[in-house]
Amino acid sequence: MMIPTPLTGVVPPVCTPLTPDREVDVPSLRRLIDHLMEGGVHGLFVLGSTSEVAYLTNRQRQVVVETAVRHVGGRLPVLAGVIDMTTPRVLDHVRAVTEAGADAVVATAPFYARVTHPAEIARHYRLLAASSPVPVVAYDLPASVHTKLPAEVILDLAAEGALAGLKDSSGDLAAFREVVVGVRNRPELKGFSVLTGSELIIDAALAVGADGAVPGLANVDPAGYVRLDRLHHSGDLDSARAEQERLCALFGMVTVGDPGRMGGSSSALGAFKAALYLRGVIDCPATAEPQIPLSPEEVERVGKFLAGAGLL
Amino acid sequence: MMIPTPLTGVVPPVCTPLTPDREVDVPSLRRLIDHLMEGGVHGLFVLGSTSEVAYLTNRQRQVVVETAVRHVGGRLPVLAGVIDMTTPRVLDHVRAVTEAGADAVVATAPFYARVTHPAEIARHYRLLAASSPVPVVAYDLPASVHTKLPAEVILDLAAEGALAGLKDSSGDLAAFREVVVGVRNRPELKGFSVLTGSELIIDAALAVGADGAVPGLANVDPAGYVRLDRLHHSGDLDSARAEQERLCALFGMVTVGDPGRMGGSSSALGAFKAALYLRGVIDCPATAEPQIPLSPEEVERVGKFLAGAGLL
Amino acid sequence: MMIPTPLTGVVPPVCTPLTPDREVDVPSLRRLIDHLMEGGVHGLFVLGSTSEVAYLTNRQRQVVVETAVRHVGGRLPVLAGVIDMTTPRVLDHVRAVTEAGADAVVATAPFYARVTHPAEIARHYRLLAASSPVPVVAYDLPASVHTKLPAEVILDLAAEGALAGLKDSSGDLAAFREVVVGVRNRPELKGFSVLTGSELIIDAALAVGADGAVPGLANVDPAGYVRLDRLHHSGDLDSARAEQERLCALFGMVTVGDPGRMGGSSSALGAFKAALYLRGVIDCPATAEPQIPLSPEEVERVGKFLAGAGLL
Amino acid sequence: MMIPTPLTGVVPPVCTPLTPDREVDVPSLRRLIDHLMEGGVHGLFVLGSTSEVAYLTNRQRQVVVETAVRHVGGRLPVLAGVIDMTTPRVLDHVRAVTEAGADAVVATAPFYARVTHPAEIARHYRLLAASSPVPVVAYDLPASVHTKLPAEVILDLAAEGALAGLKDSSGDLAAFREVVVGVRNRPELKGFSVLTGSELIIDAALAVGADGAVPGLANVDPAGYVRLDRLHHSGDLDSARAEQERLCALFGMVTVGDPGRMGGSSSALGAFKAALYLRGVIDCPATAEPQIPLSPEEVERVGKFLAGAGLL
Repeated sequence: MMIPTPLTGVVPPVCTPLTPDREVDVPSLRRLIDHLMEGGVHGLFVLGSTSEVAYLTNRQRQVVVETAVRHVGGRLPVLAGVIDMTTPRVLDHVRAVTEAGADAVVATAPFYARVTHPAEIARHYRLLAASSPVPVVAYDLPASVHTKLPAEVILDLAAEGALAGLKDSSGDLAAFREVVVGVRNRPELKGFSVLTGSELIIDAALAVGADGAVPGLANVDPAGYVRLDRLHHSGDLDSARAEQERLCALFGMVTVGDPGRMGGSSSALGAFKAALYLRGVIDCPATAEPQIPLSPEEVERVGKFLAGAGLL
Repeated sequence: MMIPTPLTGVVPPVCTPLTPDREVDVPSLRRLIDHLMEGGVHGLFVLGSTSEVAYLTNRQRQVVVETAVRHVGGRLPVLAGVIDMTTPRVLDHVRAVTEAGADAVVATAPFYARVTHPAEIARHYRLLAASSPVPVVAYDLPASVHTKLPAEVILDLAAEGALAGLKDSSGDLAAFREVVVGVRNRPELKGFSVLTGSELIIDAALAVGADGAVPGLANVDPAGYVRLDRLHHSGDLDSARAEQERLCALFGMVTVGDPGRMGGSSSALGAFKAALYLRGVIDCPATAEPQIPLSPEEVERVGKFLAGAGLL
Repeated sequence: MMIPTPLTGVVPPVCTPLTPDREVDVPSLRRLIDHLMEGGVHGLFVLGSTSEVAYLTNRQRQVVVETAVRHVGGRLPVLAGVIDMTTPRVLDHVRAVTEAGADAVVATAPFYARVTHPAEIARHYRLLAASSPVPVVAYDLPASVHTKLPAEVILDLAAEGALAGLKDSSGDLAAFREVVVGVRNRPELKGFSVLTGSELIIDAALAVGADGAVPGLANVDPAGYVRLDRLHHSGDLDSARAEQERLCALFGMVTVGDPGRMGGSSSALGAFKAALYLRGVIDCPATAEPQIPLSPEEVERVGKFLAGAGLL
Repeated sequence: MMIPTPLTGVVPPVCTPLTPDREVDVPSLRRLIDHLMEGGVHGLFVLGSTSEVAYLTNRQRQVVVETAVRHVGGRLPVLAGVIDMTTPRVLDHVRAVTEAGADAVVATAPFYARVTHPAEIARHYRLLAASSPVPVVAYDLPASVHTKLPAEVILDLAAEGALAGLKDSSGDLAAFREVVVGVRNRPELKGFSVLTGSELIIDAALAVGADGAVPGLANVDPAGYVRLDRLHHSGDLDSARAEQERLCALFGMVTVGDPGRMGGSSSALGAFKAALYLRGVIDCPATAEPQIPLSPEEVERVGKFLAGAGLL
């Protein structure tokens, strides 16, 4: 299917449920997709950072995207991450996910390889666009990529037709606004999708002019984010803010992991999966290697966050 | 073949020659290997950063390692990089390169994924070691990985038998010395290889106690680095320093690219390949996408560096 | 005078006009204060980063704070920056500015010295609070200080009574919100001032719950920021956003300086002062050493930004 | 006195002993200077980072430099740090320390203020040189300043006569070598002093061509560093390396502080002062605020490092 221009609403980055021996748990993935669609989401983003894409082998990525496309069956657009170090490797993923039926691909700037000059980043996206049969969305995630996509590079690539959208997980709302306003001021950019990945300030991003949101926490509470989106568009901004603040409190679960024993990412992804497990959506809360698993006590604390948000 | 314990001497990270349409240029790769072996090197490291591993597709990586292993035919140890974001993906590369005959694998800490806690890094290497049929060498490259491998983590993993060596490209000689001295002080670490990737201070690293060196510039002048290594071991430290300084001057070629037009990595890898092209070793100086190619004038400046070092 | 609890509205960080030989231009500073007060601002913050505090000698700082306090004459609260590397040096500034009559002091975490542990930062603020005769406001500016003040440290210090407010120039609205909500949830923190320094997203910060704003660009257009604040509080959020976007366009002036010739800070502070000069507020647009001055053509481009915003 | 051109040998950055109430302990400072001179050092560097210059008030800095100059009485050159954020503030320190009799001043690039463009850094040093009655030495300390001084900027400023030397505490030996070789290749730079601050690789820096060393640990064991310097110059490089390794082991004391309770700098400076106290050189091991003091158990561990190095 064609993705809407622009894509709007809530497009969760779908977690990848794993079995105890770290294979993709296909039945759980299907149930998770059902859970998200029942929550009213407007699209799905598989193979993003919250999906543990960096940990999935190529074979596993294939299982994920095929499962999602088949299970969704065209009811919603399915975007697929094509996360890899440089253009040639990303192009291999573009081929794989589009053959499996993805409706758009989501690509970061190069990483590990030090090609961070704006001209190199632009060349990267131009080459992706030239080969991709579906629209290309830029993914700005400086915490992982270690460069920030400059607003003017994005706008120029959009004007060329090389980019169809931006998923901004930089946390930098001023830079995000520069893209939003730049799109609005250039009529030829009509239809370009400006999406925020900052799950704690989605109300603010929508107020600034975001088209939609890609919140990792929407795995746990899709209905909450859909409600936030609707409240915003109905003009009830106070209720939207209250809903966002409820979700911020729920997000506190990402800190359950003991920092002496694990990093913040093991804790956050572990908490999301523990929450899905506790809510009965997935069968096993395992995260991929080499992440450190949460202890039973830490999982219990996740449960308290769920209870506090009325989700248990 | 078994890699020596420790591995010593000069082990260049082998450039990956490409055709004009960016496929692996197998005949040129064979000629490059001949050129390195004629220079007297003590091992080969394929699929490292200087090999543009981050730009090579899995298929291309396979071609490289198979070509190298076959062409070398056991005359030298062949180490292969298994560079990817996390453990499961690295393990796929481990399988691929060891099936092709690599004698050791060289792996960084996880990147992109934020698993940078010492416990997560240790878990990563333990899992690699548990599955790899050949020794695992840790690759410390903070400029790409955005974490520094702590000396104590390396030494502990070495003591467990999980690591067989370290390739340190951090540029931090004090931290490097901590590993060298730590190995010397712990008898159970006898045979652990401590290799420096800092091509501009190899004389200093050897004096501190490095077992060997992995200098990218050795592609261009393998005989120079081998001479430097021999001069050091013969005790003629003044001549070793003079040879190192000649190589430092040659290394100046990495700055030929116009910084307004490209990043430092496009410039540096472009210069190495231009030099190999100008010396008649490879057929085409192309670098992988999305790197920016050197202009003819910039290539000409590479030639002047070669001439200045007596290599043209 | 006592500062309001909380401090609300627009509190510009006052530029420090300089003479051509880089002395404080006292008549221009008085005119700038008049200009700001005529614009309707709610307080003044002297000796902040936009005031070039890092460039002013102790003697010059004294002239600035004495001039401001005397000229304002109690009509508005005057906050004064006490920016220095560590506690003992900051305490000297606290003494100086409070003897001159400052109503509150604004202090960063330590910098240059590497005391960035939360316990060290907390100790710093506790010592400042114990000695300061006026309230202490924490200043979060990671771009200069190279650490981010953790929300929980700020909230705990606020609960102890050590901090009276926060000026957040981190650009991280999610972390800002954590402080805003934390203050609201803890009744004992009533009156704590949460101020944003992010001049491009003040509408969003107010919507999230900021008490007030400290925008550098308010030197150039104080009436615009006061209007934005009023529109927000009157509930006309669309007009508030439009006003903010007009100010964002005006902010574009910070990029007039040629990046080949100077850094972004020379360009930005040079543009603010050029704008004040072109608007007839100050006599000389000089910035402090070693900043690079704008060229006449660059100053002319500042004029175009003013014209575009209806300010010339 | 004129400083030698180049300055050679061991020039310790002198710790600043404090009383229990954090005033400069003048008798202890004199004893520390005696201890260093008895150890055979070749110059003294007061008000450097190891001297806690960032924590000393202007009045305390004055006491330190006056005490040192008077007590040394021209027997050795005394260099003084003039550490502050930007040119005008540094110039105030230049006036203060040269009136007190310092023989050279040591200045970093600007920090806190974001003037990090090479043209801005060059302008800073040119202005310092134009006003300073004594030679200016550049201090490269990226860990505190958050920029690295580029080798070509240093060499160009040296050629202009604006800089008399470099104290390099970057830990980047390859960049250090670029300056060393650059000085050697440009006859007009004869007499420029290239000094390393990397106390763990001084043998390597000397082998590369350093003129001298500025090791913080030389406060604790000046005789050791002087011995290392002599062994190097006598050509007994194996013994020089052994001495360096003994000093590296001694340096392990910097890790005694519990990282859960304090940062690395509180631990390191606390350990140096504890060592001087345990060796009977200074009366009180207090460090400046807001550093966290070592516990009695941590001090005891410092004693074990001293014993291990034969210093108790």
